[in-house]
Amino acid sequence: MADAKYDVLGIGNAIFDVLVTTDEKFLADHGMAKGGMALIDEVRAASIYRDMGPATEMSGGSGANTIVGLASFGARTAFVGKVKDDQIGKLYAHDIRAAGVAFDTRPSTGGPATGCCYVLVTPDAERTMNTYLGAAQDLTPDDIDPAQISAASIIYLEGYLWDPKNAKDAFVKAATIAHGAGRQVALTLSDAFCVDRYRDEFLDLMRKGTVDLIFANESELHSLYQTSDFETALKQLRQDTKLGVVTRSEKGCVVASKDGVVAVPASPIDKLVDTTGAGDLFAAGFLFGLVRNAGYENAGRLGALAAAEVIQHIGARPQVSLKELAKQKGLPV
Amino acid sequence: MADAKYDVLGIGNAIFDVLVTTDEKFLADHGMAKGGMALIDEVRAASIYRDMGPATEMSGGSGANTIVGLASFGARTAFVGKVKDDQIGKLYAHDIRAAGVAFDTRPSTGGPATGCCYVLVTPDAERTMNTYLGAAQDLTPDDIDPAQISAASIIYLEGYLWDPKNAKDAFVKAATIAHGAGRQVALTLSDAFCVDRYRDEFLDLMRKGTVDLIFANESELHSLYQTSDFETALKQLRQDTKLGVVTRSEKGCVVASKDGVVAVPASPIDKLVDTTGAGDLFAAGFLFGLVRNAGYENAGRLGALAAAEVIQHIGARPQVSLKELAKQKGLPV
Repeated sequence: MADAKYDVLGIGNAIFDVLVTTDEKFLADHGMAKGGMALIDEVRAASIYRDMGPATEMSGGSGANTIVGLASFGARTAFVGKVKDDQIGKLYAHDIRAAGVAFDTRPSTGGPATGCCYVLVTPDAERTMNTYLGAAQDLTPDDIDPAQISAASIIYLEGYLWDPKNAKDAFVKAATIAHGAGRQVALTLSDAFCVDRYRDEFLDLMRKGTVDLIFANESELHSLYQTSDFETALKQLRQDTKLGVVTRSEKGCVVASKDGVVAVPASPIDKLVDTTGAGDLFAAGFLFGLVRNAGYENAGRLGALAAAEVIQHIGARPQVSLKELAKQKGLPV
Repeated sequence: MADAKYDVLGIGNAIFDVLVTTDEKFLADHGMAKGGMALIDEVRAASIYRDMGPATEMSGGSGANTIVGLASFGARTAFVGKVKDDQIGKLYAHDIRAAGVAFDTRPSTGGPATGCCYVLVTPDAERTMNTYLGAAQDLTPDDIDPAQISAASIIYLEGYLWDPKNAKDAFVKAATIAHGAGRQVALTLSDAFCVDRYRDEFLDLMRKGTVDLIFANESELHSLYQTSDFETALKQLRQDTKLGVVTRSEKGCVVASKDGVVAVPASPIDKLVDTTGAGDLFAAGFLFGLVRNAGYENAGRLGALAAAEVIQHIGARPQVSLKELAKQKGLPV
């Protein structure tokens, strides 16, 4: 196995976030399921945006957020995702490259605009997401470069990739190449509704060994196994995957492997502002711990640290160097 | 004089802010004058952006920030400024309308893209601005609707309007219409370098009574009268304008009229994060006090309060309701 050029390569929907603080009534008036990610078409996007307050914009996308977090820790990273060659696509490409991530996916020149997500943050800091996939729908297996995939120690895939019609083929192609090159494949389940849409396929990916490592939060895990009992779900997870990491918000996380279960506490915070990106950044820290061979407990702590940083401000990308932050906390970097 | 439909109508460059935190070295390496606003062309914009870190975007523009601040206090407002009918122009138009501001200026359909400003925030919270005017250059006297101008108690103009070639004619047209309708005209000097470019013209506007109220910070005032002595400059200001308001950062502000001088302290803050928009929001609060006939001292306090809000987070638009904030502080709204 050749030395890896990248520690982690992520494949995900390239999505530009349009963030706004709002009240519960806005969610109710627009029939939104609080805390979830709903796919919206252009007509609904226009209708939501028309009613929304003034916004702040920044690059997002679950997998991309994780990769940017990894870069902030000092990992060598790459991202594969589709934007259009429009103004917003250019902002997106700038931001991810400026974060130190290799980003070579060719933008689309026709078809829908760069995807965007209306992220509604309520006073309790919960975020409710409405995603217009746009150009992200045009990611195909042709966008997967075997040489680049083979050059990454870990391939990180988001469950949301099951939504655009061709991305799933890109996903499977990448996983196959990665395994052929002796690499690891990680998957985040992304969202409880997403799990509900693709439960059987996700379980199949796990049981067939297409993915080696699963990230899930509690509600995704419960959705996956259609149970409200955490221990039952965790037991099933341990049977279905080599390594499963379950995040539990302020209760920290649980790392489950065939060898056992390790619980790691959450990082303390001063003020909860916006939970957007909490899971994405947790995954960043955990994966960073893995590629540095820091052990599951340290990996969990690095994940908790990155999640704590991102939920204390608006937006899903870190505002400080996570490498410096980890150093300050005495965690291995 | 007919009842006013708007308390304040602003005319300014419609500029989309691209904000990034950076270090002093970046400014030095790119030959930027710290704390100032430099006009840049497309080539320099591309070069700065290429080197910049990941950014956060939001609508900006000095005069527009002031008008949005006024709307947040509960004032009835309108804004005149030129964007292009492109993706960023649509974000811009959405944000200002979503803030409750009437915004009817027709976007340009050809020519340069919507203007943008690369705002570089250093660790000391100072902001250094690089503005590509873009479509803002296409504001002309045709964009000034006499009926709308006549319907506003105060017309607020930014000195930056002297930069785009036709906007100055729009500015003078608006001031003339306003005075014809018995309205007041306010001008902010915008930036010390801007004053340096247009010193004689600004003094002429003041001395001829084209403008009734002047906003300036200390460095703009010193630039206007080419003196480093504050008292000398203030004395000149009192001779040249009916009402002059000078902001002095943490020293508060001074309100100078022919009747006398009132000093108002700054509002206390917890943490200085980003000074972008400090002057703009001060003007919002002060103008709000004026339209509510709250007296100069209260107007100064309202200005200080709004400035204090905006410098405690990234970006030049308020993140909370200024009306609620003023109520909490016992100020008249």
